[in-house]
Amino acid sequence: MTLEKFFNPESVAVIGATEDPKNITSTIITNLIEMGFAGKLVPVNPHHDEVFGLKCYPSLPDIKEQVDLTVISIHSDYVPEVLEQQAVCGIRNSIIISGGFAELGGKGVELEERIKNICRDKDIRLIGPNCIGVLDNYSNFSTSFLPWTKVKRPEKGTLGILSQSGSYVVAMMDMLSLEGIGVSKVVSYGNRADVGESELIEYLTNDELTHVIGIYMESVDDGRRFINASSNFSKSKHIVALKAGRHDSGIEAAKSHTGAIAGRYEIYKAAFRKSGIVEVNGLEEFMDACKVLLMQKPAKGNKVLVLTNGGGFGVSVSDMCSDTGLDVAHTPAGIREALSEKFPEYFILKNPIDMTGSSGDEDYGIAMKSALVDNDFFDAAIIIPLMPPPTMTDGVAGIISQRAKESGKPVVICMVSGIYTEKIKAKFEEKGLPVFPSPERCVKAMSVLVERGRMNGC
Amino acid sequence: MTLEKFFNPESVAVIGATEDPKNITSTIITNLIEMGFAGKLVPVNPHHDEVFGLKCYPSLPDIKEQVDLTVISIHSDYVPEVLEQQAVCGIRNSIIISGGFAELGGKGVELEERIKNICRDKDIRLIGPNCIGVLDNYSNFSTSFLPWTKVKRPEKGTLGILSQSGSYVVAMMDMLSLEGIGVSKVVSYGNRADVGESELIEYLTNDELTHVIGIYMESVDDGRRFINASSNFSKSKHIVALKAGRHDSGIEAAKSHTGAIAGRYEIYKAAFRKSGIVEVNGLEEFMDACKVLLMQKPAKGNKVLVLTNGGGFGVSVSDMCSDTGLDVAHTPAGIREALSEKFPEYFILKNPIDMTGSSGDEDYGIAMKSALVDNDFFDAAIIIPLMPPPTMTDGVAGIISQRAKESGKPVVICMVSGIYTEKIKAKFEEKGLPVFPSPERCVKAMSVLVERGRMNGC
Repeated sequence: MTLEKFFNPESVAVIGATEDPKNITSTIITNLIEMGFAGKLVPVNPHHDEVFGLKCYPSLPDIKEQVDLTVISIHSDYVPEVLEQQAVCGIRNSIIISGGFAELGGKGVELEERIKNICRDKDIRLIGPNCIGVLDNYSNFSTSFLPWTKVKRPEKGTLGILSQSGSYVVAMMDMLSLEGIGVSKVVSYGNRADVGESELIEYLTNDELTHVIGIYMESVDDGRRFINASSNFSKSKHIVALKAGRHDSGIEAAKSHTGAIAGRYEIYKAAFRKSGIVEVNGLEEFMDACKVLLMQKPAKGNKVLVLTNGGGFGVSVSDMCSDTGLDVAHTPAGIREALSEKFPEYFILKNPIDMTGSSGDEDYGIAMKSALVDNDFFDAAIIIPLMPPPTMTDGVAGIISQRAKESGKPVVICMVSGIYTEKIKAKFEEKGLPVFPSPERCVKAMSVLVERGRMNGC
Repeated sequence: MTLEKFFNPESVAVIGATEDPKNITSTIITNLIEMGFAGKLVPVNPHHDEVFGLKCYPSLPDIKEQVDLTVISIHSDYVPEVLEQQAVCGIRNSIIISGGFAELGGKGVELEERIKNICRDKDIRLIGPNCIGVLDNYSNFSTSFLPWTKVKRPEKGTLGILSQSGSYVVAMMDMLSLEGIGVSKVVSYGNRADVGESELIEYLTNDELTHVIGIYMESVDDGRRFINASSNFSKSKHIVALKAGRHDSGIEAAKSHTGAIAGRYEIYKAAFRKSGIVEVNGLEEFMDACKVLLMQKPAKGNKVLVLTNGGGFGVSVSDMCSDTGLDVAHTPAGIREALSEKFPEYFILKNPIDMTGSSGDEDYGIAMKSALVDNDFFDAAIIIPLMPPPTMTDGVAGIISQRAKESGKPVVICMVSGIYTEKIKAKFEEKGLPVFPSPERCVKAMSVLVERGRMNGC
């Protein structure tokens, strides 16, 4: 059985649907209407005849048409009954938004076992409980109960997000919208009573619209299946993982959160390495790693050219490269000779190449031509064009991206945030070069490309 | 002799002044006019009678009034002559913007020795060469040659910035403006032929307008003097340091950049610890550490309350706290009892206190009252109010800041960036609570407060 109906259902029943803004079903339905979901939307609630202009049915058996999926956000105590009923109606998929299950311990664990058993016995596939559910950005289907006015829906794109945590999914969507990074599918599966990350990774392996998966995990559903699925996905695409619940206090917190047994962190690290997964440690790193893998290809080696007009940035980027295993190798004599003919003597050619505050747009093109296009010594480049000098204009984005393209090598840009600089950032990203707002984030992003290149080489 | 005239000169001669936009003196002068600098501005250039409406003098001896300071941005070869001349005129201070000295090696080193000797012999104090010079945000004096249209001038405030790197100073000003963090004085001293960080720290110790110093350093001018000055400053205020040139490639880059001999990093680390200096590793950390020390006081211990409505954030913040030596200690029974009377059973009270997506503004007030105001167990709090749930409104900023104030303990806020959330961020900061855009940056900022608290305790 495929997971297709979770993402692109032809008909969806929303259990307990109401227009009451305090009830989250109201936001789920208005979100779907606003998104232009083309499938059939069927509210189910014995107390209403109509919800947001849609005919409302008293119960599932009253619906005559085939329903692909139920969305359940009623009190946990009533969930088993709905599942039993949908089994009778032949509805084979369910997303349970409601909390009140294993994450509470005690009786909640029992209740979760009960719904698991029903689903297993009656052949129902389940996402959740205690989750936000899905967003399919192409079928315009979502079960998010957070209004798109407060969390901006990301653009259509090729990033898939999988998460045990609902709040991470929401935060990611909001950040990605602000960054202009497009998303294909998002799944928050919460307590993961049935469908988990391994099966979702298998499913997304064949999804042409998903090129990179970012995954937030507190625990793994099935270690062996996860490694197999990830290894297979990573052959042609990329996975970035944020493992939460690494230390004692985080492990405890994870247990209260989604009932997850976080397990030994070292085992996760080894599994990630084995599966070609890039591990990250924070939310910004998570987003940056996904972004750089979406926009640039892995590096063939770790020799990195650092090119800037700001000496201090050259120095600190060199430090950070050393911290992350990137080699700011000396510029070979051939490149230095070529450049010394074109540049004034006070430009520093050693690598970092520091063209000083006197340089302008064209100098970036000259340096990249000799050091990156005409010569194969460097595997990649970190470029830090500081915009304040009057000699620097927004034309630099075109020049740098042109040379990056000619070189065929991965290039990342560091632009330190300022009101003026923000505009230039957009110009780079329009041309496909990822921009990061600090030297540390830019270096970390490059190290992701080098790490992925190394894995591919193995 | 004091450094006062570098920051608040009554009369300044700009050597080589011209209206030619390609010459940086033109920006220095237009910047000063735009800032409303109240001192006398005297252009010096034999080729002009007037520059930007100001009377221009052929040479320094032609000026009849007392001049406090020269600003020199001519070719390095001509600098010694100007210094000799200003000595004759009794002008005792000079800021040399020009590069072309020790950073080039060889003859540049000799030239720098020559200007050092002149200054020593003729009793001239010198900032630079190869620098941006100063910004005094209260006297409205600056020697920056970058137009304020491209680098936004920060608001008036209490952060001082000292730097060997000009580009870091510029980047910091731009970022600080965007963040709304106010600045008192900025000094970029480049090759540091005379005035260096130790003397500047001594000077700023008595500057009531400077509460925190952020310092970018590749090398130190005088180790013993630096430790003494920093220790003294840190008794009542705070210093944050970014040491660049930590590893081989960075050390080499530093030498080419400002002629600095970066020295062994371990020695710097020890000196920082000894002097009460908070060390940071990147530009965002640099800004965040300055910000948190400007807005909050050090923590008395490392027991940190983590309060959120997003379980995943609770988990990953707990991990990050462990990474940085913060103790997410179990909530004591007394607090748990008090809260369990007020909260539904599915709120998790263990610490992190996870009030789930169902909680609203008022719940933050209730939790903080019991856990932070009425009880002295926790030393500080990291609060992560995720705004997407409909129960959350901008009123939460007032509630949280009120309780933070009552508790007398340091509190930091994590708000993950999104278009809607940005507006709420401003509300928190108006009320004096620093907001950081990711869990990792928020935890790091709290660890700075704990580190400073520990140092003070020693």
